[in-house]
Amino acid sequence: MKGAIIVTSGIRGTFFDFIDDPWKHVGREEDSARFLRDGLLVIEDGVIVAFGPFDEVSPLHPDLDITEIRGRIITPGFIDGHVHVPQTRALGAFGEQLLPWLLDTVFPEEARYSDRDYARAGSDRFLENMLAAGTTTVQAFTTTSTVAVEEFFEAAARRDMLVISGVTGIDQFAPEGSTSTPEEFYADSKAMIAKYHGKGRNRYAITPRFALGASDELLKACQRLKKEHPDLWVNTHISENPLEISNLLLAHPDCTDYLGVYEKYELVGPKFSGGHAVWLSDNEFGRLSDSGGAVVFCPCSNLFLGSGIFRLAKATDPDKRVKMSFGTDMGGGNRFSMIHVLDEAYKVGMLGNTLLDGTTNRITQDLAAAERSKLSPYRAFWSVTLGGAEGLYIDDQVGNFEVGKSADFVALDWNAGPSAMPWHQSLFFDEAGPTTMEEAAHALFAVMMVGDDRNVDETWVSGVRLYKKD
Amino acid sequence: MKGAIIVTSGIRGTFFDFIDDPWKHVGREEDSARFLRDGLLVIEDGVIVAFGPFDEVSPLHPDLDITEIRGRIITPGFIDGHVHVPQTRALGAFGEQLLPWLLDTVFPEEARYSDRDYARAGSDRFLENMLAAGTTTVQAFTTTSTVAVEEFFEAAARRDMLVISGVTGIDQFAPEGSTSTPEEFYADSKAMIAKYHGKGRNRYAITPRFALGASDELLKACQRLKKEHPDLWVNTHISENPLEISNLLLAHPDCTDYLGVYEKYELVGPKFSGGHAVWLSDNEFGRLSDSGGAVVFCPCSNLFLGSGIFRLAKATDPDKRVKMSFGTDMGGGNRFSMIHVLDEAYKVGMLGNTLLDGTTNRITQDLAAAERSKLSPYRAFWSVTLGGAEGLYIDDQVGNFEVGKSADFVALDWNAGPSAMPWHQSLFFDEAGPTTMEEAAHALFAVMMVGDDRNVDETWVSGVRLYKKD
Repeated sequence: MKGAIIVTSGIRGTFFDFIDDPWKHVGREEDSARFLRDGLLVIEDGVIVAFGPFDEVSPLHPDLDITEIRGRIITPGFIDGHVHVPQTRALGAFGEQLLPWLLDTVFPEEARYSDRDYARAGSDRFLENMLAAGTTTVQAFTTTSTVAVEEFFEAAARRDMLVISGVTGIDQFAPEGSTSTPEEFYADSKAMIAKYHGKGRNRYAITPRFALGASDELLKACQRLKKEHPDLWVNTHISENPLEISNLLLAHPDCTDYLGVYEKYELVGPKFSGGHAVWLSDNEFGRLSDSGGAVVFCPCSNLFLGSGIFRLAKATDPDKRVKMSFGTDMGGGNRFSMIHVLDEAYKVGMLGNTLLDGTTNRITQDLAAAERSKLSPYRAFWSVTLGGAEGLYIDDQVGNFEVGKSADFVALDWNAGPSAMPWHQSLFFDEAGPTTMEEAAHALFAVMMVGDDRNVDETWVSGVRLYKKD
Repeated sequence: MKGAIIVTSGIRGTFFDFIDDPWKHVGREEDSARFLRDGLLVIEDGVIVAFGPFDEVSPLHPDLDITEIRGRIITPGFIDGHVHVPQTRALGAFGEQLLPWLLDTVFPEEARYSDRDYARAGSDRFLENMLAAGTTTVQAFTTTSTVAVEEFFEAAARRDMLVISGVTGIDQFAPEGSTSTPEEFYADSKAMIAKYHGKGRNRYAITPRFALGASDELLKACQRLKKEHPDLWVNTHISENPLEISNLLLAHPDCTDYLGVYEKYELVGPKFSGGHAVWLSDNEFGRLSDSGGAVVFCPCSNLFLGSGIFRLAKATDPDKRVKMSFGTDMGGGNRFSMIHVLDEAYKVGMLGNTLLDGTTNRITQDLAAAERSKLSPYRAFWSVTLGGAEGLYIDDQVGNFEVGKSADFVALDWNAGPSAMPWHQSLFFDEAGPTTMEEAAHALFAVMMVGDDRNVDETWVSGVRLYKKD
């Protein structure tokens, strides 16, 4: 979408973004956020070149072509840190935990993505569903097939979307047709890295599917790839399900925990993402924190598959803070929308809160941890924008409206959603909409708990509107 | 809406309802259901007078005025066993567990329902939101004010909806303006019983809000009302939050558990509903089963307030089966829609499953219980129709399409909802829609896990269409 002619344009509206981590500002979370009732975003070739109050910024850009977005809150586009492109059609399948669900539902559907037409159509549907949900960046799994990888990167490039993906590595615990050999995985990865990494907004992740699905040789291939390309991402699963973990440790008798397996192959560090992390020990959280590696919190999936309760208070412990993005994990998660993810994340946090606040066990009471479990609207929307970008080490590119980042954003209609919404919002502000940061935070909390993807009215990527609600 | 002239009409479409409890048919749940690809429902003055395959039933009613509902699955209207009318505006409020949430958010809003205009507007909004979500019957809390009770019963009567409600009894643990004395409660209840119970489709419930909010005198007033009117319902809360329970037992040193308090005042038996029941002991479940009393499972609320994980497998234990309806508990629950309730109920069940299947604890492994925790589409839609009706002892009136019951139903559009839905549904059947019960069950599961209230296309009450999606 970029040409030789530099195009400058402006977006005027009400903006809400973050400049810091709200968990660092307990009791004064508003210090982490930025609210402009009447703001102006100036965009040049898809990149933000100015941002501030309309009255201050507009005189500096006298001939700007301005689009006004009225009656909306404009936030940075949502970032989904863990999602599976080829599960687009199979999301929400009945009745199983992780391992049988993979065998019965997921692998047969994913195998279809070796067909180029199917992979292209599926990738397009995936991204259209994402944009309709306000998500502008994903770190995504594809399949073992380079066809699936190519079609996904191409689909993202057609929309100029920043995505992180790569060839899936799995050579055991899956049916034939859903696996490849370590040699094939290595060769395919090298080819895809050369073809896509750093091309436009495509970014490459070495992608062992999950440790149990990878032989020693496959994990060694990942290790070799990371050594040869230290700037690559590493995207995988970690400690999702109790049965998976006990099986894994049988295969790695030299490791005492799940993280230890990835450490053994030198995969853990900056740009490492472990999806789920439900059953990580305190010690594993501590080592992840030290390493700079990240977890991805996928509450829809953790509940849908019954995996367990992610320990939000542990991940946000200031003494051992772990980088973290949030993910749908669609189709282990049953929704495309990060707004739904926030609904479920809040609930997981509140369950954790009850377990920590002393009402069920005085011995384990930890009131500071219980407080960290409360997903305020500040923490929530930070987590799916700037926080998610930091978790994925792409906060130099996206996550808020800083000059130099891409103009990826979403316009939220706070009155859309179920019919209950407008009267609920009228508790906090009148029809003119939120006029203060506090009112806007109320509006955003209502969007996540009463609303859903219907609140996404427009989604823009690189300064171009790619979605408008009917 | 009923007049002297008998009006007979027919609905032709695809019907799905239940004739038995799917939990009694493990492995053959379809034996509990009824699927008519091309069915005819014949309605006279709001009541079902015939139901069966179109080819069989239509010749018996030659001059019938038939409405065809194409491309939809018609199920009985949903039944919400536990919901709060005066929380319509305040649903989804941030950040607290039960007791502070009541004080900060709920009581101030509920106090407004002493104003007749506010109560009328609020009741109308409540019911319109319910109908838009496919719910045709509720057991609902109002407030201590007879104004709130009157306006709710009148609003329901205007729509000819079967509702159960009553004056709220609370005389402690609440601010002034949200309480009444036991004497006022008794007198107000008597007046409302005389005015509304059995009038049209209004049904009356003695409604102590929750045991901790009721003095000994108030509970004695409830006991007296139940003795004087043994045919009345009793609607309350039970064992929702750990802190609430420990406080309650201090006030009733002669009781060893929460249920024991209600038993002491002879309130437990048929037509008793205890909302939440998250922390009931095995012994309490057993006594409830013996008594014929019911629990109401409110997963959105239990997660939103962090109350805990309802033990679905325990409630459905065939040795001590407990009657059960499902509820939104809006606004402790953050959604009006029973479809959302099914999403969250499935997830609570899957979490329970993991705790029971031996992967976390071999000693407590109970595979039969883990299986009962899986909320199949049969179990799910039974629970919000016939099962809910049985839990509330109104299955002689509503819950399925048996002759003699009211024509309360909903037409579900299986392709509505998020943009992901149509391609997902195409995994199971083609564009013509489901042709078998199994395909229809797939469609319904997709509605509950991928869809939401958008799938509700029409809602009919007493044979009249009261909601049509825009």
